Amino acid sequence: MDTDALNVSELEALARAKLPAAAFDYYASGAHDEVTLRANVEAWAKIALHGRVLVDVSARDAATTVLGQRVSMPLLVAPTAFHKMAHADGEIGTARAAAAAGTVMILSCLSNTAVEEVVAASDAANGTVWFQLYVYKDRKATEAVVARAEAAGCKALVLTVDAPLLGTRERDVRNRFCLPEGLAAKNMVPAGYGDLRQPSAGSGLAAYVAELLDPSLSWKDLAWLRSITRLPVLVKGVMRADDARRAADHGASGVVVSNHGGRQLDTSPATIDVLARVADAVDGRCEIFVDGGVRRGTDVLKALALGARAVLVGRPVLWGRALGGQRGVEHVLGLFRKEIDLAMALSGCAGVADVTRDLVVP
Amino acid sequence: MDTDALNVSELEALARAKLPAAAFDYYASGAHDEVTLRANVEAWAKIALHGRVLVDVSARDAATTVLGQRVSMPLLVAPTAFHKMAHADGEIGTARAAAAAGTVMILSCLSNTAVEEVVAASDAANGTVWFQLYVYKDRKATEAVVARAEAAGCKALVLTVDAPLLGTRERDVRNRFCLPEGLAAKNMVPAGYGDLRQPSAGSGLAAYVAELLDPSLSWKDLAWLRSITRLPVLVKGVMRADDARRAADHGASGVVVSNHGGRQLDTSPATIDVLARVADAVDGRCEIFVDGGVRRGTDVLKALALGARAVLVGRPVLWGRALGGQRGVEHVLGLFRKEIDLAMALSGCAGVADVTRDLVVP
Amino acid sequence: MDTDALNVSELEALARAKLPAAAFDYYASGAHDEVTLRANVEAWAKIALHGRVLVDVSARDAATTVLGQRVSMPLLVAPTAFHKMAHADGEIGTARAAAAAGTVMILSCLSNTAVEEVVAASDAANGTVWFQLYVYKDRKATEAVVARAEAAGCKALVLTVDAPLLGTRERDVRNRFCLPEGLAAKNMVPAGYGDLRQPSAGSGLAAYVAELLDPSLSWKDLAWLRSITRLPVLVKGVMRADDARRAADHGASGVVVSNHGGRQLDTSPATIDVLARVADAVDGRCEIFVDGGVRRGTDVLKALALGARAVLVGRPVLWGRALGGQRGVEHVLGLFRKEIDLAMALSGCAGVADVTRDLVVP
Amino acid sequence: MDTDALNVSELEALARAKLPAAAFDYYASGAHDEVTLRANVEAWAKIALHGRVLVDVSARDAATTVLGQRVSMPLLVAPTAFHKMAHADGEIGTARAAAAAGTVMILSCLSNTAVEEVVAASDAANGTVWFQLYVYKDRKATEAVVARAEAAGCKALVLTVDAPLLGTRERDVRNRFCLPEGLAAKNMVPAGYGDLRQPSAGSGLAAYVAELLDPSLSWKDLAWLRSITRLPVLVKGVMRADDARRAADHGASGVVVSNHGGRQLDTSPATIDVLARVADAVDGRCEIFVDGGVRRGTDVLKALALGARAVLVGRPVLWGRALGGQRGVEHVLGLFRKEIDLAMALSGCAGVADVTRDLVVP
Repeated sequence: MDTDALNVSELEALARAKLPAAAFDYYASGAHDEVTLRANVEAWAKIALHGRVLVDVSARDAATTVLGQRVSMPLLVAPTAFHKMAHADGEIGTARAAAAAGTVMILSCLSNTAVEEVVAASDAANGTVWFQLYVYKDRKATEAVVARAEAAGCKALVLTVDAPLLGTRERDVRNRFCLPEGLAAKNMVPAGYGDLRQPSAGSGLAAYVAELLDPSLSWKDLAWLRSITRLPVLVKGVMRADDARRAADHGASGVVVSNHGGRQLDTSPATIDVLARVADAVDGRCEIFVDGGVRRGTDVLKALALGARAVLVGRPVLWGRALGGQRGVEHVLGLFRKEIDLAMALSGCAGVADVTRDLVVP
Repeated sequence: MDTDALNVSELEALARAKLPAAAFDYYASGAHDEVTLRANVEAWAKIALHGRVLVDVSARDAATTVLGQRVSMPLLVAPTAFHKMAHADGEIGTARAAAAAGTVMILSCLSNTAVEEVVAASDAANGTVWFQLYVYKDRKATEAVVARAEAAGCKALVLTVDAPLLGTRERDVRNRFCLPEGLAAKNMVPAGYGDLRQPSAGSGLAAYVAELLDPSLSWKDLAWLRSITRLPVLVKGVMRADDARRAADHGASGVVVSNHGGRQLDTSPATIDVLARVADAVDGRCEIFVDGGVRRGTDVLKALALGARAVLVGRPVLWGRALGGQRGVEHVLGLFRKEIDLAMALSGCAGVADVTRDLVVP
Repeated sequence: MDTDALNVSELEALARAKLPAAAFDYYASGAHDEVTLRANVEAWAKIALHGRVLVDVSARDAATTVLGQRVSMPLLVAPTAFHKMAHADGEIGTARAAAAAGTVMILSCLSNTAVEEVVAASDAANGTVWFQLYVYKDRKATEAVVARAEAAGCKALVLTVDAPLLGTRERDVRNRFCLPEGLAAKNMVPAGYGDLRQPSAGSGLAAYVAELLDPSLSWKDLAWLRSITRLPVLVKGVMRADDARRAADHGASGVVVSNHGGRQLDTSPATIDVLARVADAVDGRCEIFVDGGVRRGTDVLKALALGARAVLVGRPVLWGRALGGQRGVEHVLGLFRKEIDLAMALSGCAGVADVTRDLVVP
Repeated sequence: MDTDALNVSELEALARAKLPAAAFDYYASGAHDEVTLRANVEAWAKIALHGRVLVDVSARDAATTVLGQRVSMPLLVAPTAFHKMAHADGEIGTARAAAAAGTVMILSCLSNTAVEEVVAASDAANGTVWFQLYVYKDRKATEAVVARAEAAGCKALVLTVDAPLLGTRERDVRNRFCLPEGLAAKNMVPAGYGDLRQPSAGSGLAAYVAELLDPSLSWKDLAWLRSITRLPVLVKGVMRADDARRAADHGASGVVVSNHGGRQLDTSPATIDVLARVADAVDGRCEIFVDGGVRRGTDVLKALALGARAVLVGRPVLWGRALGGQRGVEHVLGLFRKEIDLAMALSGCAGVADVTRDLVVP
């Protein structure tokens, strides 16, 4: 990788220039008018950070734990699909970069690399992989993939709950998005579950989701899921306080405040704008995470101040991947680490415990 | 019709390219500085949709009733004038498309096709037509058209109350807007009531309204109107809670929260911004509808959440008409149906009863 | 005059094209960054008008009284300087147009025509002239001009109180603004009081004001002014509730809420944004007027709803003057009359008494 | 100096054209996305000034005292580094201009001229110099510079507390910012403390700060600093009410509300938006100053109204320097003086004591 990009925005511009348009569009686009896509990014800058001064910040440590697992900083790699579209080293490259950075990679159910291979690569680098799960209409197929993930050594399941249907990403519809020749989703065994066929019209992924995923999924299924695995389960896609409370009631170990990166329900609020409400409702009964539009170290501090244990970062990792596979992801995670450290220093926080609500609500 | 337009905005751009400028301007324009025209559209996106998750949405149904009439979705065709300017199949094409979509067409008093023909075409397709009414200074002429509409088989009257004079649409003034050669308003019998003559200056429609419509219309006339028809009467053009209460007091079966698509009183607020206040004031005593700037399925959900029974859609239907007459309108209604369905799925709503206030007011 | 301008904005564009740049700049510019200049105009559109429906508006009348004087509409001609810069018929043309429109002209102290001539022309057309007054350091000179205005037949004095120094209009500074050859201020007798000499640097008007006007003017001088005239005195330039109360306490017959068209203290609020506060503070003890950014008939209704008895219109009159002298001003006043009438009809107001606070504060 | 620039914005444009790009960037840039940089400037215009009228403002005086020192206006020269990059007369030129203007110059610790020379030049012109201080890891070096400043005749120390690390100014990183050949920081004695070496990558100043400045600085060090000097100490970089209270508790003579001109923690709020909260918390126990985005005389009045004793002006002084060294700074300070005077006149304030909170909070 050869880039002097100083920040994630520059990386995105470079990735856009390098990736095939349909791949870039798939990664970058949001649903319909992309109102939420933009809101996610813009909302962070509207939150002012009221830094403290004259605090000894000579020894700073951004480390924290997520589900009891130590991570070097409060930033995990969000689940995103199809890493080989961005770079040939695929999810293995991402996993190695996450491990090197001392943080967790959440592997997408729709990865181009089998979960066993990803976890093996991660384990070799002392990394941790969590597995993002879609529930299929065919519950046996779902059980099979859960069993594979657990057997492979994933340490948690992240159940996506905001996609009973796929949001309409109009760029994908226009591009008739499907996987490039030679790539497949590698975690699903039944015939057809791994392919994303060229559609006669519209988005191939939308057709896949409509055909195979289960729109009947409801809170009771959380009990079912917990019954078929020993892994802790996080619920990803929660935007309401009542739903977050329900997640805790149903035994979720964590909630990811997410609107799927603005790719599902357009005009859903920015995640950071609902985080405090969700966190307050859960009141510590499970861990809270947030994703959507995180681009700067200061964003991470704001998320923590408003109740998150850590943030998930998706697209920036993909831009890093596009520019350099594993090394590109390392570069991105390095940018974030440096910015988080600087934001802590300039906010008067030596550790994550110092990142309290008053930093954003004076 | 041959278009790959994915949404209403694209349809508008295509229609603008296809229609004569004066016709497009007539359909598209608003009063004076078009502040309200823009506000109507922009206000929807500012309202965040707080979707629920883990609700079984495998069986979704957007059907509802309006004045006791079942419709397949909470979206009716708004009354708009002069459908033959957009496509030769005129209001008959629109009526057939509405019927095919299982929803109500509200026929404009100022239609290019006689109400009898429109209703006959609608009936043949199991459709329902409501009749939008202007009250003329000549009350006998008004009674005649009411009688015609009722005899033709219209199922309700929609009384427009926000046009004692016509708002100044400056584009029409510049264009000296009148009907193209060969077109007329076909529902009015007395001589001169069907013509929209080329004016010596200004808008022909403004001159028509100033000459013929009754600016003395007041609440007591609602009693008069109800006395000359057995049809239920809706009052269209209400923007205030007190006026909505008065409408219910005077026996209106419904209220349409409307600012006439931003074409009458400029700087009137966006309709969606007053809907909740109106709905709360009426408190279920009659049905509430809303129009103005509805462009997405999520807009429809927001309207329902804030108290509407259904929305009315005007200009998007005209863009569909411009591109393909009946088939174009079917395309537009199909877009909305698909988006409403998706918005329900992604908001955790299996039916319209699930679309409650907390979706927009968390 | 030959124009098809439909509104004041179009008139401004035409006037800009026709006038010498320094004259246009003088009329159009505001102080410093022109924050208030823009705010004045933009603030009106942000106020929503909540029109009533089903009110009999067949007989509409915008007439009202100002200081007991009947005017055909709640809109007066604001005092603006140097009318001959825009058209040779000067203040006489403006006075005739105001008289023809049945409203009051407020003549600027800095007029290019002597007050006696202006009032004579106005009287001949059954018009009414009020006289805007600056207080000079030389109180005898001031008394002389007051005596002249009163003797000439002016019916009120409008004391400008927001100009102890002239605001810095940077366009004038760059243009080294002064009066064109042959023009002078005609109401001041002492030598030098009528000239606006070419300055060695900066604005000639700023130099004039700094040299001659009295920055020591204070509330006690209101008593002095009232002691030297039988005319009612209005205080123009008030932006605060406490100052408005003081004006009433000191016997002012009226208060003009004004920031001098954004030409004095930049970042002063928009006038319409402080009007209600001022009006509520005065509570009927004297009459309230407002100027600044009035461009549409709906603006006039909003002003009345928020407590004004009438608005003053300045720059639009100048644009009319530039395009056609007296006839141009008649055109502008005609535009406003038509828009006020339409706004009343569409708001459900038959007369100005119907324009109540709830039209803007629902 | 030869400029007809009427205001600070024009001066900035001229300075940008004249300075080497890296020097302009160093002076002009902010941290990361420059959100705070822009907010600082934009926030002032959003605050409305509610001027009083009919106050005798014939005798105006903007003089005040800061730490007991009389200044001719409530505006001091903020500490900014490396004045020789902008003009060869360096900090001496600035000091002379400040003295001539009757105000205080705060000399940056990172000046290109030794403090002794600067104070001597200032003293010769009856000026006053305060000394801005960074605390180095090497406390002996710090004590040495404090001793030098005190011995030289500086009248106060301004301790910068918002820079435990340097904020990332991406323009400097790209430019690999360092001092031009021949320039050095002249106040530090130990070897290496005066150089800003060309870095192999990134900003030379960031490397300098990371290597030498003390990120462990905390409130207890304020006691240490006060123990080694007889000078009063101001704490610069406070943005929170609690920190301001702590500063007063620890014996600070003043607090400078500052976000370092948007150069340290990006998305820190605009200074003017937190000033009132800070001032109210301190409640007169020490003096409050503010910097950041002050560009107009009206800004100065707003700062005073919200609780500041005076403002500090940084970048505008640099633009003046770039255009004319000492004479350029005199020009800038003259612009401000004239604007402050005009703003006082137009707000009805004869002296700074008249600038009360109600001017901005009606």
